[in-house]
Amino acid sequence: MAVCEILSVGTELLLGDILNTDTRYLSRALASMGISVLRHSTVGDNRERLAAELKNSLERSDIIITSGGLGPTTDDLTKEVCCEVMGFELQEDSSIVEEIRSYFKSKNADMPENNKKQALIPVGGTVFKNNHGTAPGLAIEKDGKCIIMLPGPPSELEPMFEESVRDFLSKYSDGVIASHTINIIGAGESAVALELGDMFDGENPTVAPYAKQGEVQLRVTAKADTTDEADKMCEPIIKDICSRLGAIVYGVDAGNIESRVVSLLVQNKKTIACAESCTAGYIAKRITDIAGASSVFGCGIVSYSNDIKMKILGVSEETLRAHGAVSEQTAKEMALGALKVSGADIAIASTGIAGPGSSCNKEAGLSFVAVATNNFIHVQKIETGHKNDREYNRYVTASRALNLARLVLEGKIK
Amino acid sequence: MAVCEILSVGTELLLGDILNTDTRYLSRALASMGISVLRHSTVGDNRERLAAELKNSLERSDIIITSGGLGPTTDDLTKEVCCEVMGFELQEDSSIVEEIRSYFKSKNADMPENNKKQALIPVGGTVFKNNHGTAPGLAIEKDGKCIIMLPGPPSELEPMFEESVRDFLSKYSDGVIASHTINIIGAGESAVALELGDMFDGENPTVAPYAKQGEVQLRVTAKADTTDEADKMCEPIIKDICSRLGAIVYGVDAGNIESRVVSLLVQNKKTIACAESCTAGYIAKRITDIAGASSVFGCGIVSYSNDIKMKILGVSEETLRAHGAVSEQTAKEMALGALKVSGADIAIASTGIAGPGSSCNKEAGLSFVAVATNNFIHVQKIETGHKNDREYNRYVTASRALNLARLVLEGKIK
Repeated sequence: MAVCEILSVGTELLLGDILNTDTRYLSRALASMGISVLRHSTVGDNRERLAAELKNSLERSDIIITSGGLGPTTDDLTKEVCCEVMGFELQEDSSIVEEIRSYFKSKNADMPENNKKQALIPVGGTVFKNNHGTAPGLAIEKDGKCIIMLPGPPSELEPMFEESVRDFLSKYSDGVIASHTINIIGAGESAVALELGDMFDGENPTVAPYAKQGEVQLRVTAKADTTDEADKMCEPIIKDICSRLGAIVYGVDAGNIESRVVSLLVQNKKTIACAESCTAGYIAKRITDIAGASSVFGCGIVSYSNDIKMKILGVSEETLRAHGAVSEQTAKEMALGALKVSGADIAIASTGIAGPGSSCNKEAGLSFVAVATNNFIHVQKIETGHKNDREYNRYVTASRALNLARLVLEGKIK
Repeated sequence: MAVCEILSVGTELLLGDILNTDTRYLSRALASMGISVLRHSTVGDNRERLAAELKNSLERSDIIITSGGLGPTTDDLTKEVCCEVMGFELQEDSSIVEEIRSYFKSKNADMPENNKKQALIPVGGTVFKNNHGTAPGLAIEKDGKCIIMLPGPPSELEPMFEESVRDFLSKYSDGVIASHTINIIGAGESAVALELGDMFDGENPTVAPYAKQGEVQLRVTAKADTTDEADKMCEPIIKDICSRLGAIVYGVDAGNIESRVVSLLVQNKKTIACAESCTAGYIAKRITDIAGASSVFGCGIVSYSNDIKMKILGVSEETLRAHGAVSEQTAKEMALGALKVSGADIAIASTGIAGPGSSCNKEAGLSFVAVATNNFIHVQKIETGHKNDREYNRYVTASRALNLARLVLEGKIK
């Protein structure tokens, strides 16, 4: 089986200026093709260190995929150094100059002169067209080794991989890995591990747990000659885990709770609305991250102030005075208000202290989420225990609100 | 100057299941301390490969910081392997067992037996208390080399770094790097690079551009004995760049456009509201990402359906019929509606096609953003050119709406 390493190039990565999402994307794509990724590494825009890293990687692995350093500026060195290390020459390709020029034209701009550098192509290499930017991707192959150079911006790298690189790599893929993820909300990693302890020792399929922002995921992975076979090996294990864990499993390969909720809504021909205080748009944003959400979602009210809670959602002044904005009662009235103003079938609501620190004598990490339909209303209290992590508290509160909608749609709350 | 490498451990990273945010966090923190990060690498939960990587790293660098692999399950190997490679023994620490037990108690849970493994501590090592989870951090030092082991979850690693590791590392830091970022919305990387081309050749300070989700950032970095000195070296360069680029610069070290907008609102004692169609909560979410946003933001309307655009925001049926939901006119009426319903000083609105694909005969990536005050209204048309990137289109549209608010608050639109 072909062994691959991913090498990211860019001082901005070493300085922590940007998050390395390319490596994750490529890892996932390669895993699905049955190409083993053994290492990730990152070096800066430095000729010597990049060359040293490439030489080491070529000794260990068959395929090196680089991302970044194909830009028009002088600190973009990846192409030159890769070609030097593998012994390839660079030559300007006039048709690529024209492509870059027309890319700029499509954006009503002139091509800056320095972008011409991106049209230098290794003689004998493969060119991957960039339909979303100016730097083409490249591959050079020699003596059973292959370096693939991709542009750094995810908006260019990802479509280029799907449009060209996946096909190009198929010759290196033997055997197939199938991997499925069981998505869990409502129990910690340790508790899940303890419940399933004996299942983590298998070699093929393997089961591995990991924690992810208030969720636990279990990855079941099998290797076989075909995807079908590998999938069949995973099936009984997945079934067993789901039956052991019960209602805390919200999906298999569901991606995330918002995807699961949107697909349940579509299946059941139901609509949803939301009223958000502490999450303040995060629930609506996550629902509408899913393409096609417009068929099930029309209305979200971000009522960050008490004034808007009363004016738009009809939360009573008395409730706010007696119980405070962060309370079971307010969460309930917000959900009922969203149900009424939107005309949706289901409404979810959130109110809480996102933090950092405390407010109104309540500690950050405390929140209430509610779900309402025309027949019932249900509230849940959440204490994340993360006093200083605003993002975590908002994300987890949004997840829990969405999870209530999931439980309603699955008939597990009624 | 001490040289550092960051080594992430976890098969889930190599499979692309999770994004490596730890490395970014650590890189940024180390850069601010004047500790050079020369490489990032990631290996799986594999004893041999982890040991090999550690040995290589120790040859090149003074400090290795690992993240991940300190969990309670059998595939968590980091501690054992690091101690083996450096020659440290492990011993159970009963006070740490008690800490872990009381952590579970605070969550109303019993400690699973396997968590005891996390109380194994290298004899002669340093322990960093974990106030947000169960695995303590550890440091072992020998012969001028140091390995620091941190837990993988960002919600544990980040506070642990701030609470303990930063102090521990101060002895390795000599000289200081000051780094400042100039934030730009409204021009591409190539165009900015061309405008400033001659400024990229400096050695100290250095200026480096990079693109980031519809924005360009320029990083100006200087090295000196003290932060003050380094800052003073950056100052004239930053001033020169800002004056060359003009209104497209929205800040220096502003972090992001939402931070800039919130701080301008606070400074000017103004409030903001938003009405969102295609961004559907993303603007509100980004404003309220900023702790303390409640003093300037009270109301957001997510009007994903035409019905809600009319009902809550008062967009006229005639406008929607004649111009469509994705139009200059609708964006304007949405902003005016949000201004009215919220009573805020400034309202921003978005409507567009997030994609993928096209709808209503309009292509994804097209959007309109508007800003309204009691005195004027201004609309901007955006074409991102990203037909298939829903996240990008939504993010950039939200950024542009926020940028309109920024221009108003800076008196650049009136």
